[in-house]
Formats: sequence, structure tokens, C-alpha cells
Amino acid sequence: MSFSVLATDPASSARSGRLELAHGTVETPIFMPVGTQGSVKTLHPAELDELGAQIILGNTYHLWLRPGHELIRKLGGLHGFTTWQKPFLTDSGGFQVWSLAKLRKITEQGVAFQNHLDGSKMLLTPELSMEIQAALGSDIAMLFDECPPYPCEESYAAESLALTTRWAKRCKDWVTANNPRSGNGRQMHFGIVQGSIYADLREQSARELVDLDFDGYAIGGVSVGEPEEEMFRAIENAVPFLPHDKPRYAMGLGTPPQILEMIARGVDMFDCVMPTRMARHGVAFTLDGPLQIKNLIHAEDPSPICESCHPHVAGFSRAYLRHLFKAGEMLALRLLSFHNLHFYLRLVTGAREAIASGNFTEYKTAFIRRYHHNDES
Amino acid sequence: MSFSVLATDPASSARSGRLELAHGTVETPIFMPVGTQGSVKTLHPAELDELGAQIILGNTYHLWLRPGHELIRKLGGLHGFTTWQKPFLTDSGGFQVWSLAKLRKITEQGVAFQNHLDGSKMLLTPELSMEIQAALGSDIAMLFDECPPYPCEESYAAESLALTTRWAKRCKDWVTANNPRSGNGRQMHFGIVQGSIYADLREQSARELVDLDFDGYAIGGVSVGEPEEEMFRAIENAVPFLPHDKPRYAMGLGTPPQILEMIARGVDMFDCVMPTRMARHGVAFTLDGPLQIKNLIHAEDPSPICESCHPHVAGFSRAYLRHLFKAGEMLALRLLSFHNLHFYLRLVTGAREAIASGNFTEYKTAFIRRYHHNDES
Repeated sequence: MSFSVLATDPASSARSGRLELAHGTVETPIFMPVGTQGSVKTLHPAELDELGAQIILGNTYHLWLRPGHELIRKLGGLHGFTTWQKPFLTDSGGFQVWSLAKLRKITEQGVAFQNHLDGSKMLLTPELSMEIQAALGSDIAMLFDECPPYPCEESYAAESLALTTRWAKRCKDWVTANNPRSGNGRQMHFGIVQGSIYADLREQSARELVDLDFDGYAIGGVSVGEPEEEMFRAIENAVPFLPHDKPRYAMGLGTPPQILEMIARGVDMFDCVMPTRMARHGVAFTLDGPLQIKNLIHAEDPSPICESCHPHVAGFSRAYLRHLFKAGEMLALRLLSFHNLHFYLRLVTGAREAIASGNFTEYKTAFIRRYHHNDES
Repeated sequence: MSFSVLATDPASSARSGRLELAHGTVETPIFMPVGTQGSVKTLHPAELDELGAQIILGNTYHLWLRPGHELIRKLGGLHGFTTWQKPFLTDSGGFQVWSLAKLRKITEQGVAFQNHLDGSKMLLTPELSMEIQAALGSDIAMLFDECPPYPCEESYAAESLALTTRWAKRCKDWVTANNPRSGNGRQMHFGIVQGSIYADLREQSARELVDLDFDGYAIGGVSVGEPEEEMFRAIENAVPFLPHDKPRYAMGLGTPPQILEMIARGVDMFDCVMPTRMARHGVAFTLDGPLQIKNLIHAEDPSPICESCHPHVAGFSRAYLRHLFKAGEMLALRLLSFHNLHFYLRLVTGAREAIASGNFTEYKTAFIRRYHHNDES
């Protein structure tokens, strides 16, 4: 279980690296497809392998509620349960309690709420989050944090950050006492930097977490409705205070250009529902920007989505894909989900290669220029 | 374009054969997965290939309404449009006009109706059905018929049958004048025997169609709500009057035991939405009968659906599949659709092999006994 930086970009903070986890090696920068309920929506694990996915994400909140972490533990953890044999990262449940649950009440102990499935009252604490993630057996577990809303007063952000740090200590204590495993290896644990849009709070959060010494660090509280500049600034305000030799993860981001901007700011890991969610709404990502396949302009178009489609998708015309969407055929959702994940995984592979060969800034600039030139989304 | 009987069963009317079509060879008895709107629901054409599907069905009515046969013609027929390169059979649209359209009015000319998508008024005639199917470029086109309801007075069934015969003549005239193609070959045309539950009408219908000399013959008007005995009797009343050297197709059938019963009665070809539709409702076919994967009994079950699952599905536990269904994950529908088509295709492959080795009756009896022993559907 280790992380090594393999190359750094001379013109930005971008770096490529290798993260050794219990279930395999992850090359960074990496994009992690999201498998909220133990399935990356519409896709078979063999397809994720074919796409070159190296690590996928599972959501602690969803899996805790259904089917329950004890059942998953009994069936061999997330790896046994889902058959995905490469690494898993699990989030802490904090963000979902914040965004999905009702009647949420935050106390020192944890977060009491009514769950979104049957409305029953539940309590998620730092210790329980770590216990659930230990049962899930993920390669990387995230610490339980509080994610403040946007916008957020500085005083609230400061109190929230202090609570996140106290909870991080409790998570650490639980981990030290219980030494959770992932397969034959040790589970890694990442702290989550909070602090909203306040530079001094981001610095404080990063320093406090680094003092506690985790295996990696995430930047949380981004992509919660703030303008893009604020998102970039949150990263810029945190990264300088994070150790060079630990992986950095920007949670829940973003568009393809945003991902390159984040890589330029020193981020190594990403996850986002955008490629699969947009696919289900008929949007295919291309080098020329997002394309809405349901648009009338594609009705008779015999060409494929793009010139560099994966063979799994390349044979299908835009006209056929549009028809499948119009007709409500699930194959449409599969094909676009596959296509979009292929696009995101190629994007980060391209970034890795560009960093290794010292031309990341050219790669990023050329990609973004072409992408924004002809955006029909 | 030819059909040869390769083996006959000594103890029943079962036979195995080979049907040479424009896009490849079909070994009979065969089950044809249904791709109503140009997609076998949830599945990729490459998966159908992997499953050993030899021919799939497209629905003329649906494809005519959306995206339209002229668009499909322009994009290379159904083969070019969908990328499925093996044979297609298209139905005539008659059954869908009967079961889906509204304000249906049957005249000598054809059937006037309001379509089920936008309620607009349309007219389907024998000539138009053949023209649409020619544009779709299917390997086998079905003649336009009238499908009487069940139950049905003998006088209505007799009139309906006479109309079906007159329409068959008009279809034949259109085909003779237009000589439709499928890829590099000739499109085959199958007549449809009607006559409801009346033995003399089934005989009359069969004799009249055989006089007109088609490439194959279907038995229609079955699986329309009649008891199973009536369904079997309809086949028994038609088959003796159909030529030995032409393929026979029982439309829209059926359960796995029914398919074996039909094979025993001399039927060569089957299509049914049951494997894919039942899959979407959580039912997996097994040698021990249908299994409802959503049942609580499977909640913690680490075993696969059955002992002879395809590798594509075998790795997944019943517990995981149940979870995917409960969580509304589309992967569940894919995996069960794949499984059920695998089951149906193995069923007919087993029948072919049993006919070739002279033990079809044992195969059928053993299959049905085990299947009905423990039916939880």
C-alpha cells in the first residue's frame, strides 16, 4: 500500500503516479466510475475491465441502507458481492446524508436523519461510517466529514471544519483499534479537506488533517453549486498544504475540461456520475464537446458518435442511437454509458501520458480549445 | 435459400433441419429472440452472437411507425441499421395492429387504425406490409394476415380465414412483381395458417396457402388467450397439411415445456418475448422451473441462478441479483435477459441434438418433469 509520484509537469502542478492498493495498482491521474449501489449503472464488470477502469467507487450510504453492510461482508465484501476484482473506493456517507436524507440533525456524536428509502430514523457516526466501510472491504475508505452547503457563512464553515477534524480523529482512533483489511491488504484511509470558499479555512483543514497523517487527502465541499472559479480556488487553497507524496482526490468532479484543470492544479483522483448520468439523458461526450443524440439533426446520420469511438460502440450510427433513445430501448443507455466512460478514461490516460512526456499543458490547452469550440449541449 | 430436413424423431413428429437464408444458416428447431424496435431488449448484438442466436425477429408495425422503413432502407436495411449481421425475420404488422392499435377497421383493402404512438390514422394493406418488409430487408418476411380473437365464432373465423387467403394472394402478387432482396439473396416469404380452434378451418387455411406455394408456413392465431390444449390442437390441426420440406413456425410461443411440445408436433421455429419480458420482471428460467429472483428467500443466497449458467452471468450470486433488482439497477435486467435467452437457446440446441441422436422424447420428458417439479413462479 503505497503511492509514488512518477513524473511532474514542468509548467503546472500536474503529476503522474502509481498507487498500490490491496486489489491492484492504480495509475494516476485516474477517473473512478461511480457504482453507487454496487453497479456502475447499466454496465457489466467485464465491460469496466475492457474500458480500462482501474478503480471504481461505491457509496457507503446507499449500500448501508440496501442491502446492508453485514450482508455484503458475509458475501465477501464489495469485491465478492459485485465480482469486481480491482480496487474499490468507498465514500463516507457524509455527502449523501447531506444531499439525500431528510430531517438531518448534526450533533457532536454524528448525524441523525430519516433515510430516503423508508423514512426510518438513523444515526451515522464517524465510527459507524468506518465500521461500514470496513465491512464493505474497500481498498480506500473516506473519513466521515461534514460537507457545508454553498453559500456558507465563514463562521459556520469554521465550526463545521473543526467538527470534521474532531470526527477525523475519531475515525483514526477507530481505524487504529480495528485495523480494517481489504482482501489481503490494509485498507487505506483518506481525510477530506473542508473549509468552503475560505482560503484560511482550507489551509487550516489541510494542516489539521495532515497532522493526523492519513494515506491520502481529498478536497470535499466542491461541486455543491459554487461557480467554477470557486471550485478551482478551493483546490488551489488546499493543495499547497498537502504532502507531495500522498494521493489527492477531488470529490465528485467534473466536466472533462474541469478534470484537466484539476490535474493541472495537482489532483490525482476523480469520480463523477456525469458520464453515466448524462448518458442516460442522451448526451455523448466527444472531443468536440457534448453531443445530444436525441436532437433531430442526428435522425438520418449514418456516422458514429465520434471518430475515435471504442469498437463496442463504433459500429452504431447516430441515427440508430437516436432511434433507440426515442423508442426507450435500454441498449441506448448502455452504449452511451460505455462511450462516456471510455471518453473519461481516455482523457485521464492522455493526461498521464502527456505528463510523462512533458507536454501536459499543450494536451490540456488543445483539448479544451477543441472541446469548447462546438458545444451543443 | 433452401430448407433441408436433416433428421426426424422416430417417436414424434419432431425433426431437425437447416435453413439457408440470405444472411446465413439457421439450424432448426430454433428459437428467435425478439428485437421489436431493432434491439433485443437490453442486449448488445455482440452478446446475441455470444449466445449463439442464429436469427432474430423485428416487428414491422413498430419499425414502420418509428423510425420508419424508408430511413431504415436508407441506412442499409435492418442489418445496416442495427449492425446484426445474421438473419432477420420480420412479422407482417397484422398482429400488432390487432393487439396495439386503436379504432381498428378491417376492410377488403386492409386495416385502417389509429397508431399507438400519436393516434394518427394509418392504413396497412397486404401490399404495404410487403413493401415495408422489403425496405427492412429481412431474410424472411411474413404475409399480412388477419388474426382472429379468442374466443371466436366459427362463422367469423371462416370469413377471416378467407380474407387472409385473399390477402396472401395479393402479397404473392406484390412479391412476384417486386422480387424483394435481403442483402445479396432473395427474401423468403412465409404464409400464416389461421382458422382459430376449428380443425376444418385450420386444414382449409393450410391447403389454400400451400396451393399458393410459399417458402415456409407459420401457424398464427395461437397464444391469444386460449387454453394450452387448444394451442396444441391448433398446431396438430395444421401441421399434417403443410409440406414436409418447408419450415414451420409457431408464432409468439411459448414456455419452455410448450416449445418442446411444439417441436414434438413438427414445428421448427419459435419466437417469444417471454425470456426477455420475464427477465425484466425478475424471473429467471432454470431447469427446475422459473425462479423469481426478487423473492426474500434469495436475499442472502451466495449461489448463482443455476448450476449451468453462462459464464457472463455465473459469477453473480442470487443475493447480488436480487439487490440489483431491488435497487432498480439496469444491470439486473441485462443479466436476466442474457440468462433467459441462453436458457431458451440451449433448450432448442438440446432438442436438435436429441433429434439427431434419436432420443428426443426422453429429452423432452426429462426436461418437462424436472421443470414442473419445483415451479415457484
